[in-house]
Amino acid sequence: MADVVMATPKEQLMAAIAPEVAKIEQIMREDLQEATAGADPLLTEVLNYGIFNGGKRLRPLLLVLAARLCGLSSKNKIKKNKIYKLAIAFEYLHGATLFHDDVIDRGDMRRGKPSVNKEFGVIAAILGGDFLHSRSMSLVGEHGGIDALKIFCQATNAMVDGEFLQLRNAQNYTLSEEDYFAAIKGKTALLIAATCEIGALAMGAINSRQQALAEYGLSLGTAFQIIDDLLDYQGDATQTGKVVGNDFQEGKMTLPLILALSTANGEDRERLLFLLGNESGRKEGFFEAYVLIEKYDGFVLSRRRAESIVAEAVAGLRIFSGEECLPVLSVLNALAQYVLARKK
Amino acid sequence: MADVVMATPKEQLMAAIAPEVAKIEQIMREDLQEATAGADPLLTEVLNYGIFNGGKRLRPLLLVLAARLCGLSSKNKIKKNKIYKLAIAFEYLHGATLFHDDVIDRGDMRRGKPSVNKEFGVIAAILGGDFLHSRSMSLVGEHGGIDALKIFCQATNAMVDGEFLQLRNAQNYTLSEEDYFAAIKGKTALLIAATCEIGALAMGAINSRQQALAEYGLSLGTAFQIIDDLLDYQGDATQTGKVVGNDFQEGKMTLPLILALSTANGEDRERLLFLLGNESGRKEGFFEAYVLIEKYDGFVLSRRRAESIVAEAVAGLRIFSGEECLPVLSVLNALAQYVLARKK
Repeated sequence: MADVVMATPKEQLMAAIAPEVAKIEQIMREDLQEATAGADPLLTEVLNYGIFNGGKRLRPLLLVLAARLCGLSSKNKIKKNKIYKLAIAFEYLHGATLFHDDVIDRGDMRRGKPSVNKEFGVIAAILGGDFLHSRSMSLVGEHGGIDALKIFCQATNAMVDGEFLQLRNAQNYTLSEEDYFAAIKGKTALLIAATCEIGALAMGAINSRQQALAEYGLSLGTAFQIIDDLLDYQGDATQTGKVVGNDFQEGKMTLPLILALSTANGEDRERLLFLLGNESGRKEGFFEAYVLIEKYDGFVLSRRRAESIVAEAVAGLRIFSGEECLPVLSVLNALAQYVLARKK
Repeated sequence: MADVVMATPKEQLMAAIAPEVAKIEQIMREDLQEATAGADPLLTEVLNYGIFNGGKRLRPLLLVLAARLCGLSSKNKIKKNKIYKLAIAFEYLHGATLFHDDVIDRGDMRRGKPSVNKEFGVIAAILGGDFLHSRSMSLVGEHGGIDALKIFCQATNAMVDGEFLQLRNAQNYTLSEEDYFAAIKGKTALLIAATCEIGALAMGAINSRQQALAEYGLSLGTAFQIIDDLLDYQGDATQTGKVVGNDFQEGKMTLPLILALSTANGEDRERLLFLLGNESGRKEGFFEAYVLIEKYDGFVLSRRRAESIVAEAVAGLRIFSGEECLPVLSVLNALAQYVLARKK
């Protein structure tokens, strides 16, 4: 008799979403082929290289799941086509921001291979991003209508605004929690809220359902970013692929540091501020800062904050109470737990 | 009795369009204020700096003129508002491409002052451009509907494609006229066609009128780019603000060179190709190449080509035959002549 190996929650989740992810990939391939018909071969190559890079497809997946929760059936082919086109628009937009981020940060690697900027240069990265940006809006307008386009553009512009806010925050060592949350809302969470909301909107769901899904996305995105910022301190570089302590070394104010600063006694607070302000010595100061943040539970409290936000996110979906909702709800719940548990 | 000073055609044109340009500026200021309400102050500063820089506002102007030709009256306030919002979308998109171009070309100056990239850095230039890009599509979707958005996005993506084509062309010294026209169509002309077409579309003009205006824009844009490329050889640097011979020094294949190469005798052709291929010596070779291009009428023939394209552009507007069309037609005609006559 063979051994019975229990699947981990992550494995169960991955198995549950695999067909959707495969479908999303397929639709993207078809759409990109259509969008680049007759286009310059290099442009086509750049787009395919940058988009098909093993991404998790979280944003389009959330849109499809939101639509399923609002009644999308596999039999309604016209509706399904519309929903998947809307879904991939979010992945294109995400791709566009990654193309541009790699120019801004001079990032050489992306998911274990050279970034578009590194591989094809700055023209390809900027213009390829612009192409995807434009295609994404065109898809949202065509398949979601003007209301969806408005939500999408608001989220896009909030993302730009969030990046500017973060730039400004980087200079400010007395940043408040409120400022931190405002920045990550714009930078990450609003677009994840938009993907969930548009999934519901495109199904003609009632307003309370649209709002519940938007709130779920907002919370999920917020928790996602808190964990991202935690991993920057506590992650395993071999898993995250990023240098530990990068944010601190750049003087970036994230939640663990903000929470520690807000409760530290005078002496420790001053020491933390000194370590932060001493730009050339931040690399050496990282371990000492880490110990001080831990002393004031900065990491534990950040994680708890993410956990309570995720709990709220899931609780807000209670209005989807029909039995037919259970399978999708369990995936959305598992996704939320995965956001908390992820190591990379 | 005072002296009577006759206005030049350029002065007459400028006087005729001044009120429209002022109105366009005003609507942009109001819209940008609305779009950046609550946004980061730096983002707002970057956008205002980059947008209000003394641009000629050709694209929005064309949209308003096209709409007037299709019956826009100053009394219809709702329609007027819609038309101006669509018009400024084209200026935003143009702004977005300039923001990004300055990153790509590392351009330090733009219209006599430091470029956004130079003044605020690469993050501001890329993300500020993304913001404008997104705002422009949102305006087109909201005020022009899905059909306008489709035309707009096709033109945007053709622009990216045209840039890629131009990149590819730069390596190719045996470029055909056809390739040259395909690249400038995507890079410049299609968007100017789109602005004219959408002006007509938004007025509910019949298809033949939409198409006539689209053709006018396509021809105007094509002629505009030919003259731009001519000025790169023959312009007065104190007027154009650009280094003469820049395209040749970069090995860029534009119409005067292509036409000369296609008719030069074997020896001259070989010499031109040698001067082009000798990358490190192109600066010194420029004058010799100039003389060779002139020998084969490359400049004269390019200008004639632009003139005949402009003549077609204007002729295509004959279907607007009503007397009420005459004032707008005369402005569109003068604009076309201005494109040919411009020195910068």
